[in-house]
Amino acid sequence: MNNNNVITPEMLRSAKWLDAGDFRSFNHRSRMMQMGFGIDDWDGSPIIGILNTWSDINPCHHHFKDRVEDVKRGVLQSGGLPLEIPCMSLFESINKPSPLLYRNLLAMEVEELLRSYPIDGAILMGGCDKTTPGLMLGAISVQIPAIFIPAGPMLRGNYRGETLGSGSDAFKSWDEYRVGNICDRELEGICGGLARSAGTCMTMGTASTMTSIVDAMGMCIPGASSIPAVDTNHNRMCSKAGKRIVEMVWEDLTPGKILTKKSFVNGIVTAMALGGSTNSIIHIIAMARRAECNISMDDFDRISRDIPVIANIRPSGDLYLMEDFYYAGGIHGMMNRLRSFLHLDEMTVVGETIGNVIQNAEVYNNDIIRKLDDQYIKKGLLPY
Amino acid sequence: MNNNNVITPEMLRSAKWLDAGDFRSFNHRSRMMQMGFGIDDWDGSPIIGILNTWSDINPCHHHFKDRVEDVKRGVLQSGGLPLEIPCMSLFESINKPSPLLYRNLLAMEVEELLRSYPIDGAILMGGCDKTTPGLMLGAISVQIPAIFIPAGPMLRGNYRGETLGSGSDAFKSWDEYRVGNICDRELEGICGGLARSAGTCMTMGTASTMTSIVDAMGMCIPGASSIPAVDTNHNRMCSKAGKRIVEMVWEDLTPGKILTKKSFVNGIVTAMALGGSTNSIIHIIAMARRAECNISMDDFDRISRDIPVIANIRPSGDLYLMEDFYYAGGIHGMMNRLRSFLHLDEMTVVGETIGNVIQNAEVYNNDIIRKLDDQYIKKGLLPY
Amino acid sequence: MNNNNVITPEMLRSAKWLDAGDFRSFNHRSRMMQMGFGIDDWDGSPIIGILNTWSDINPCHHHFKDRVEDVKRGVLQSGGLPLEIPCMSLFESINKPSPLLYRNLLAMEVEELLRSYPIDGAILMGGCDKTTPGLMLGAISVQIPAIFIPAGPMLRGNYRGETLGSGSDAFKSWDEYRVGNICDRELEGICGGLARSAGTCMTMGTASTMTSIVDAMGMCIPGASSIPAVDTNHNRMCSKAGKRIVEMVWEDLTPGKILTKKSFVNGIVTAMALGGSTNSIIHIIAMARRAECNISMDDFDRISRDIPVIANIRPSGDLYLMEDFYYAGGIHGMMNRLRSFLHLDEMTVVGETIGNVIQNAEVYNNDIIRKLDDQYIKKGLLPY
Amino acid sequence: MNNNNVITPEMLRSAKWLDAGDFRSFNHRSRMMQMGFGIDDWDGSPIIGILNTWSDINPCHHHFKDRVEDVKRGVLQSGGLPLEIPCMSLFESINKPSPLLYRNLLAMEVEELLRSYPIDGAILMGGCDKTTPGLMLGAISVQIPAIFIPAGPMLRGNYRGETLGSGSDAFKSWDEYRVGNICDRELEGICGGLARSAGTCMTMGTASTMTSIVDAMGMCIPGASSIPAVDTNHNRMCSKAGKRIVEMVWEDLTPGKILTKKSFVNGIVTAMALGGSTNSIIHIIAMARRAECNISMDDFDRISRDIPVIANIRPSGDLYLMEDFYYAGGIHGMMNRLRSFLHLDEMTVVGETIGNVIQNAEVYNNDIIRKLDDQYIKKGLLPY
Repeated sequence: MNNNNVITPEMLRSAKWLDAGDFRSFNHRSRMMQMGFGIDDWDGSPIIGILNTWSDINPCHHHFKDRVEDVKRGVLQSGGLPLEIPCMSLFESINKPSPLLYRNLLAMEVEELLRSYPIDGAILMGGCDKTTPGLMLGAISVQIPAIFIPAGPMLRGNYRGETLGSGSDAFKSWDEYRVGNICDRELEGICGGLARSAGTCMTMGTASTMTSIVDAMGMCIPGASSIPAVDTNHNRMCSKAGKRIVEMVWEDLTPGKILTKKSFVNGIVTAMALGGSTNSIIHIIAMARRAECNISMDDFDRISRDIPVIANIRPSGDLYLMEDFYYAGGIHGMMNRLRSFLHLDEMTVVGETIGNVIQNAEVYNNDIIRKLDDQYIKKGLLPY
Repeated sequence: MNNNNVITPEMLRSAKWLDAGDFRSFNHRSRMMQMGFGIDDWDGSPIIGILNTWSDINPCHHHFKDRVEDVKRGVLQSGGLPLEIPCMSLFESINKPSPLLYRNLLAMEVEELLRSYPIDGAILMGGCDKTTPGLMLGAISVQIPAIFIPAGPMLRGNYRGETLGSGSDAFKSWDEYRVGNICDRELEGICGGLARSAGTCMTMGTASTMTSIVDAMGMCIPGASSIPAVDTNHNRMCSKAGKRIVEMVWEDLTPGKILTKKSFVNGIVTAMALGGSTNSIIHIIAMARRAECNISMDDFDRISRDIPVIANIRPSGDLYLMEDFYYAGGIHGMMNRLRSFLHLDEMTVVGETIGNVIQNAEVYNNDIIRKLDDQYIKKGLLPY
Repeated sequence: MNNNNVITPEMLRSAKWLDAGDFRSFNHRSRMMQMGFGIDDWDGSPIIGILNTWSDINPCHHHFKDRVEDVKRGVLQSGGLPLEIPCMSLFESINKPSPLLYRNLLAMEVEELLRSYPIDGAILMGGCDKTTPGLMLGAISVQIPAIFIPAGPMLRGNYRGETLGSGSDAFKSWDEYRVGNICDRELEGICGGLARSAGTCMTMGTASTMTSIVDAMGMCIPGASSIPAVDTNHNRMCSKAGKRIVEMVWEDLTPGKILTKKSFVNGIVTAMALGGSTNSIIHIIAMARRAECNISMDDFDRISRDIPVIANIRPSGDLYLMEDFYYAGGIHGMMNRLRSFLHLDEMTVVGETIGNVIQNAEVYNNDIIRKLDDQYIKKGLLPY
Repeated sequence: MNNNNVITPEMLRSAKWLDAGDFRSFNHRSRMMQMGFGIDDWDGSPIIGILNTWSDINPCHHHFKDRVEDVKRGVLQSGGLPLEIPCMSLFESINKPSPLLYRNLLAMEVEELLRSYPIDGAILMGGCDKTTPGLMLGAISVQIPAIFIPAGPMLRGNYRGETLGSGSDAFKSWDEYRVGNICDRELEGICGGLARSAGTCMTMGTASTMTSIVDAMGMCIPGASSIPAVDTNHNRMCSKAGKRIVEMVWEDLTPGKILTKKSFVNGIVTAMALGGSTNSIIHIIAMARRAECNISMDDFDRISRDIPVIANIRPSGDLYLMEDFYYAGGIHGMMNRLRSFLHLDEMTVVGETIGNVIQNAEVYNNDIIRKLDDQYIKKGLLPY
């Protein structure tokens, strides 16, 4: 409990289902007991819906099947009741003709699940390209407290001791194979080497662009988007999200208090500095409209003219991948270098401003996260 | 392999994703390898999508989280590759204002998941009221081989040694509580006693009505709908479904070859004899139209005039519940008594006619499954 | 926190491993972090070791693989850190030549696991015959707070609508098969019908005898031994055990404060009234000696002369099984009838005396739990 | 099936439990059915016991809880029935006073579990220091076909962009902390950075030394010991082990046919070239005696004089860790450079000689796996 609390147990959404004193709530309680819960499991406890986009056909979210246990642990430790609710899993590479067609179907499902069930706060587990905006769009509509948990990038690819990057090296290898420079057996080796662990693409493709943006906008446990999927810090981040979402319910810290025009600007600034995917434009605009923030193509145009790419990550960069970016300081190291361009007073899910959150972040490798030239720093905060 | 096989490995839907010899399939293979699969896991193996409507907020499907392992075992034993794909879980009692609003959203999701991923055959895991038609509608549209796995009814309720039925005794107890015949503590005891295990309502409500209909229409491992959720025979049924779906892929035994006007009549006859829920009417008509079978309210009217209720199951019956019905011989015992009213030549997912499937089924308790009077038997097959 | 607390965070056993301020504890903390825990997960939190005898070859404990999640939930809700530690699973029917040979090996393993790891309190998950004494013997030696969680009996067997009991009906059916009264197909049906769910034998064999004794001695969440394995009350009991063990750590309520000569007498009285297995004698004496309580064959002799069998459960009873016993009021209903023979002041794991715990327990069926004749009640507490 | 098969279904160990035609086997079948298996699940199928040393307090084996699913998949695809059987988990860093005291207790448990249950072939899942010899010792005694699955090393440690090695950097950091060069906060960062993923120590400590030796002796899917725990190739290796163990049962390829004096020499040569832990000496001698092979301290002395350390892995090496070693070609790349010192005709679990298995292995980085000087190559096979 802290001073920011404005919600009391009887004000919880879930209390309307479970403690209304009518026949319906008697029935609801009976069905909660059917799952082995007792009254003290939900009485006075926020119910946290964990929307999990895990599936056996989505390798990027493969670890979410078990990683959800870390989230649940945190929720329980913080006095909430975690309920995992699977939802539609969209996987960029295999979903045909394109998962873009399903982003809004996922958003609808998320919105309806959150609204139709007794959920006080939401954890959104996603990361593969369209899942990030799909989950965010649904949660924005419902306006209950929510934290986004990014899947995290996979490890660097590797074949015969050489680093491979998703996408870029897939194209290259296929061309080498077509001209006969690579044999069938080598191609199979590269096939397995391109994607060696759970997690999203480790180049700065749509997945890491989108999770970085949502992180920069304050909707993640700060810095979450840079943590590799199989690094134990990812487990700890998940557990922190579980602990924090319960506090957010008591504080009524809804997405509307975090997602403002200024936080979207922070997201776009970050995307530009990362050299992120242009696919992000359609998702940012969709999220901004859902959040009733006025973001247009002009904003992208203006910001892109002022912000240099300082993250040296493939495909725009020449060598490095998300794993390197993480070791080099990650998104917070980079954002701290961009301080003069960011709206530092914007709120984050942890209840602190983004300015506070990044203020001690360091960069450990200037080749991966480059320094801003002086003329950029002087130019400072953009007029948005 | 058997003589009914008409599909060869290269004809598999999944082969178009994984073995097309182009860049896209190279990419798809890479991502299959990302999950720890090897080429021999899918090469020549049908990919079975297991659509699982498990969630932590759906006690009826609570056991599906683990029961899916029995399905997977069967698929693997039969030479297929099982991939679990969660989808929207609709739970009748808690979903507000009503899961009826979401049946078609589930149907859309099922259809899109099956169509957009490299799936050769589908297992549909459902049971709570709207999930059965939701899953079926989606699968009918896609027309790939599919088996429906019903969650199975929960155990009989119990409080202080007395049997309780879902729904009926909930209403009754609440009224007793309102007039003061039952105290708070007793109400809590009844609350837990009404729903004592995983599984759907154990009265003949919408859940068991719908799963029985789908079973009678030939879309389940025969007799599956009567097995209690926590009976080990349910595990075995799941494993059989897993084994069988792989054979169905090779045989190209699609829903269209099973769902005919006559099989819908079988379903309606069964529903009438069970004294099933009238909610089934809207779902049967929806499924029939999706399957392009001509079923109308007139069919219900005619059949209901001819078929007596012979299953003595609450709420229409006076004492018994689904657990009793199962021990008494279950749906097949009952259907065998209804032989003269059924279209016995209709196909089932196991590749045998429904007539063959039920021919040796016995009834062990004539109070639970009543005998047909002679005049009914003589009347025989209805003119549909 | 309550008034009974005598342990402070720095007195915890686990604090010696994790908070000692030396190199070793730095190393231990590093490895706890390797699993995704953070310092606040263990700092000031009792570590609860959950010794789980689940295995894929032990159908009696089959549900323990997942049921452990209910225990973990309770531990977390109560401020502890649950760590599951699998140990040797002994399954009576398949382990050859006899699991009796391995009871002490299990006891050694339990003792060594509890002692060699930073565990402040233990949950012991067992039930199949030798696992109960094996787990108890180990925990008694270590003398850290512990709660025993019994697996619970399986459902009544069923074949063609007739109830089957484990053991008894297996022998009978086999003989019928040998003389030709039962065919191969029927034998297979009976084979599956004899054991229809997870859980231990549902006759009063060694499993239920031992778990009932340990329950009567105060080492279980009161009444736990009668709950069928697949009844949702079993989940709730597990969660309560998880919550309670953390409190027991703070209270330093060790087995030595619960297991006295008098509590062993309570266990024997219960066993006699149940008509329990004589195998219990060797296990009770082993446990008593490990607990330094003076119990001998003479005690069994004396008590057995005074206590009538009042539980009508097969094989000594004529019809009923553990599922019936549970509905009829279970072990507490029966013990309340035996009040005059029990040492009511003995402590239980919940911090109340066994007398308090059973005082409101009722019997709902006098055919299953018989009334004591007056001469018995007058005779009253035995001179032990 | 292949030409090497010498075992028929009726010769299987498990058939003595399950198909003996007597009352006992009727009982055993009943209990197999209790778990949801059907007769066709075991009839004619080897039962594979998967001995899993997973526990919540063993971070090195943390991934084994789920990784076992890959093993099971392989067993099922190959026509076997996989049964997971947990056994005592020994974790070097936290087990006190030392897990060395428990190696033989684990060995006893493994031997008794394999012998007392109907197991035809065994998968041994271990890796942390004492678990490797513990599992091997038990399996050698029983002499049923067995494959060892090493947990695999964890990822390189990382703190502020700098690589950390387990052990070595723990000591160093602690000393820096004691003299005040590192503050509390930095120490916590290092604490988490030293061990960033599931898996065993990534220096060449006892864990990787022992798994490499067992791999070199032919008891692993070839090359398994070098694969990082969280690399998807580890999943594939597990699945291969599952597929292969079933074939080994039919071929009766027992440890005695693989573990000879010569294969132990191969193991020692490998350990020396790796600069492995001297702890391996006591475990190698224990395993050799259990396997009735004559290995003594003299063998270590002689071999150590002839074989140079060519793997540049910390702590004997100056920079690299197991992850680097894997990318550089791993154990097979190294062994191929040592060909002239190895007994190439020794059998491995895959049914090929170690010579064949390593013959195409390449080295991709000569700084990590050094070339042998000519004088070494000329010296050639040692006289053992």
